[in-house]
Amino acid sequence: MNTYRLLISCPDAHGLVSKVSQFIFKRDGNIKEAHHHLDEQNKHFFMRIEIESNLTCSFDEFQQEFAQLAQKYQMNWQMNDVRKLKRVLIMGSKSSHCVADLLHRGHESEMEAQIIGVLSNHDKLKKLASWYDVDFKKVDINKDTKVSDMAKMMDTVDAFQPDVIVLARYMQIIPKSMCDKYSGKIINIHHSFLPSFVGANPYERAAQRGVKLIGATCHYVTSELDEGPIIEQDVLRVNHSDSAEEMQQMGQDIEKVTLAKGLQYHLEDRVLICNNKTIVFS
Amino acid sequence: MNTYRLLISCPDAHGLVSKVSQFIFKRDGNIKEAHHHLDEQNKHFFMRIEIESNLTCSFDEFQQEFAQLAQKYQMNWQMNDVRKLKRVLIMGSKSSHCVADLLHRGHESEMEAQIIGVLSNHDKLKKLASWYDVDFKKVDINKDTKVSDMAKMMDTVDAFQPDVIVLARYMQIIPKSMCDKYSGKIINIHHSFLPSFVGANPYERAAQRGVKLIGATCHYVTSELDEGPIIEQDVLRVNHSDSAEEMQQMGQDIEKVTLAKGLQYHLEDRVLICNNKTIVFS
Amino acid sequence: MNTYRLLISCPDAHGLVSKVSQFIFKRDGNIKEAHHHLDEQNKHFFMRIEIESNLTCSFDEFQQEFAQLAQKYQMNWQMNDVRKLKRVLIMGSKSSHCVADLLHRGHESEMEAQIIGVLSNHDKLKKLASWYDVDFKKVDINKDTKVSDMAKMMDTVDAFQPDVIVLARYMQIIPKSMCDKYSGKIINIHHSFLPSFVGANPYERAAQRGVKLIGATCHYVTSELDEGPIIEQDVLRVNHSDSAEEMQQMGQDIEKVTLAKGLQYHLEDRVLICNNKTIVFS
Amino acid sequence: MNTYRLLISCPDAHGLVSKVSQFIFKRDGNIKEAHHHLDEQNKHFFMRIEIESNLTCSFDEFQQEFAQLAQKYQMNWQMNDVRKLKRVLIMGSKSSHCVADLLHRGHESEMEAQIIGVLSNHDKLKKLASWYDVDFKKVDINKDTKVSDMAKMMDTVDAFQPDVIVLARYMQIIPKSMCDKYSGKIINIHHSFLPSFVGANPYERAAQRGVKLIGATCHYVTSELDEGPIIEQDVLRVNHSDSAEEMQQMGQDIEKVTLAKGLQYHLEDRVLICNNKTIVFS
Repeated sequence: MNTYRLLISCPDAHGLVSKVSQFIFKRDGNIKEAHHHLDEQNKHFFMRIEIESNLTCSFDEFQQEFAQLAQKYQMNWQMNDVRKLKRVLIMGSKSSHCVADLLHRGHESEMEAQIIGVLSNHDKLKKLASWYDVDFKKVDINKDTKVSDMAKMMDTVDAFQPDVIVLARYMQIIPKSMCDKYSGKIINIHHSFLPSFVGANPYERAAQRGVKLIGATCHYVTSELDEGPIIEQDVLRVNHSDSAEEMQQMGQDIEKVTLAKGLQYHLEDRVLICNNKTIVFS
Repeated sequence: MNTYRLLISCPDAHGLVSKVSQFIFKRDGNIKEAHHHLDEQNKHFFMRIEIESNLTCSFDEFQQEFAQLAQKYQMNWQMNDVRKLKRVLIMGSKSSHCVADLLHRGHESEMEAQIIGVLSNHDKLKKLASWYDVDFKKVDINKDTKVSDMAKMMDTVDAFQPDVIVLARYMQIIPKSMCDKYSGKIINIHHSFLPSFVGANPYERAAQRGVKLIGATCHYVTSELDEGPIIEQDVLRVNHSDSAEEMQQMGQDIEKVTLAKGLQYHLEDRVLICNNKTIVFS
Repeated sequence: MNTYRLLISCPDAHGLVSKVSQFIFKRDGNIKEAHHHLDEQNKHFFMRIEIESNLTCSFDEFQQEFAQLAQKYQMNWQMNDVRKLKRVLIMGSKSSHCVADLLHRGHESEMEAQIIGVLSNHDKLKKLASWYDVDFKKVDINKDTKVSDMAKMMDTVDAFQPDVIVLARYMQIIPKSMCDKYSGKIINIHHSFLPSFVGANPYERAAQRGVKLIGATCHYVTSELDEGPIIEQDVLRVNHSDSAEEMQQMGQDIEKVTLAKGLQYHLEDRVLICNNKTIVFS
Repeated sequence: MNTYRLLISCPDAHGLVSKVSQFIFKRDGNIKEAHHHLDEQNKHFFMRIEIESNLTCSFDEFQQEFAQLAQKYQMNWQMNDVRKLKRVLIMGSKSSHCVADLLHRGHESEMEAQIIGVLSNHDKLKKLASWYDVDFKKVDINKDTKVSDMAKMMDTVDAFQPDVIVLARYMQIIPKSMCDKYSGKIINIHHSFLPSFVGANPYERAAQRGVKLIGATCHYVTSELDEGPIIEQDVLRVNHSDSAEEMQQMGQDIEKVTLAKGLQYHLEDRVLICNNKTIVFS
């Protein structure tokens, strides 16, 4: 018995659910959990179906046959075998709280993922990665040689052949070409409740504005800074006695938990992107 | 164009989703939103389907024909036309925060419901009900004549022909016969985070225990006090400076919001009961 | 036995707490609860002291004598007798959820306040106010006669002699002169998690951005729109299936609760303003 | 310039704050932050004062002189120099999420503490401790030799000379003698929202009861299981699709964050114990 996940988005059409569920039924698939959502504004339909089954055909055959149905309805779709773990590359900088948290979750098999490497522009995370037996690569990013440094960074990323790239406080702006190449596959944690405090120093600006809650936002990266589709957000109560430095300290807890949660949704194929928004079938 | 909601629970069987979605498709129903859930422990399947459609058959025909499919799969099911508002009876006592909140939501059409009456064992809510043009009935409950008083109360309830009965801090234990008769139709708000502080004086006991969060629980009423299926819960932060009286005051906000939310889930046919738990397709 | 509240803010100085507590001690005041906070950036000190006492001198004498101490340390201060309820004027527009909630709290004595009136530019709230026996005044605000209309509105406000003005979704921009005159006394509820979505239509913009939490912000009004000192904020989880209209509906619950909480802090003399931020001794 | 923290609890008496603040003032102490709280039920007074100063006397002299004042008012008190880090011993079992989180915080100097050791009845945490250069001791606990094993465990604890003992999912019941010896110094994380689900298997029981929120509770350990004074609690939303196993997984995030927060309050001398409750000056 195995589990597959089918993710579909397509223009709304009469009989979609019926057609898809019949297709699965005929191949002896059993629907274990399913979510359907119609975006009424865009007349677009979204499905996530968890199939538990010894399929009567091979996974490849199933996909080839489904491709015909998919074409008919102009579906954007993917089907994943849960046994095949996604390859996750972590990119970090100096702060280690998110990276340590992800590596520990990976090590304890708390995530449906294989963490294949840590890439950084500093040495600080090297020891951490090595302790978890995870490959570490350093690519310096210097102001004066940024273009070539970034090219080298991207080559290094490509060499990892990642399914997902996690920016765990990487602190560098990702070039547009890389955003496009890995569209819907780069996940960032921003240390504010977006759209508040887009850009640099959000905790300082939060302290300055005197907000009573600080937040963290996990989102897909696009070429527009901090404007990509939001996957998950959370907040934490602060008060007048908390300085910007203390907020930064406290905020680390929601950063790591929110990043882990958003990443987990992605790994479990729960997220579909619609324009600049996400459908999260949680 | 109209919207119907189909709620189904039944033993898991191969092809269920396929059969149901085909049935809808053939009658020109369009699935707008759907949730499917398999309870793996009990091998029980749950569906909520929102159908947007000019059905090709009448609502009655649809139901008659569906009954055959339902029988085959031993379905427990219901189908509701969203235009037909559920008849809600509010039962209260002396405290008015939940009742006032529900009446205001009813008055402003914020709920899919028709509030048909307020029933109480005290006069205090009379003015409130009358102002909202809602029928008010008082049935005294005295210690010495409790059995006959309760009988009278139940007759009064029956006379209202309610679809849903909301215990908005009614403070009397509902007789077993009434619990059974209106099984899955009586919704209570308990002023604690169940299963903490079952029974009387939860805020006093919360203050005594020194908890850092107080809560409220919206649940279906069964003959076992505060043990019915939970629909919704929420909590609120308190601290050492909050006395039991202040907790009671502060708690009113989560009581009213949690009751309204749980009730709304019920009114929108989002809740299915499985043994002593709920499936809430929110 | 009575309770007084002393609120002080002043430049930090050695021995402040000692001097103030001795002053109270000598007049037989008993400190029941106290909070002291030093803003290290601005070297400014803040105190809130709750005094429970039969003072040996009159309240007026106490204040006259304290004024000398206050002058020496350049204190900004006030002392309030809790028996003297603050006069609250509610200003609203068409939506009634916040106004109804405040009126109900006032009616049930859940707030340390005397609600003296409802002022609106529409008739909709009239019935609500009259039912709670609260004075209702309507002042039309028209595009073409805005300047004179606003002047009339301000005269009406002045006539109420309010201690606090609550903008319960008033929807009009308050003139600078009024902001200045009632500085630190006008409390607004903004239907977003500021600084996200300053200005109009925050729910629409929240839906468009695809945020996963919506919020509400209770703040003092200054002449800069939605930029005044924040007293309290809260958020609510939403998801992809919630339209802007549904968010608006759901958001009403945090709007009313957040406004009530922020207002309560103010009424209980828990809020001190420091530049554009608040110290809330909760 | 240095910072000291003075924690006082004593029977309420007239002039307490005045006397204490004068005492500090005369020795050139500057009060940076202070909280005072009167427990009206028990007529007990609580203070936390943060003193920033080059004291005119030595720390020892200050304490000796203060002892006289303290005696007069029957104070239970302590004064700590923030430069002197508390010695923290972590006790764990097989699950590593809390231990790894604490070790990482210690390593990154995110806590005012010196982590002096990890003590466990299993080998699993050894590698983790060694990587963070923290002393690891294993003391087996067997059913048949529990009494002597526990004695050995307690000897090992004593040898560490800890200021604080953190039970980071230790899973063994601590003997009464150790609870008494380290009264107010042993901090436990319980994986439920107490008083719900005292004892074993809280997630299983939470799943069975169908709660909509699961929780974690950080509390001081007393000889009554899960009944000690609560320092901090938090909750997390779950739904019908989350099994007991998934709740356990999800719960790890609030366990580690709630434990870290409660511990931090203790390390920063923010917690005072009053009977079975805590005053937390956060």
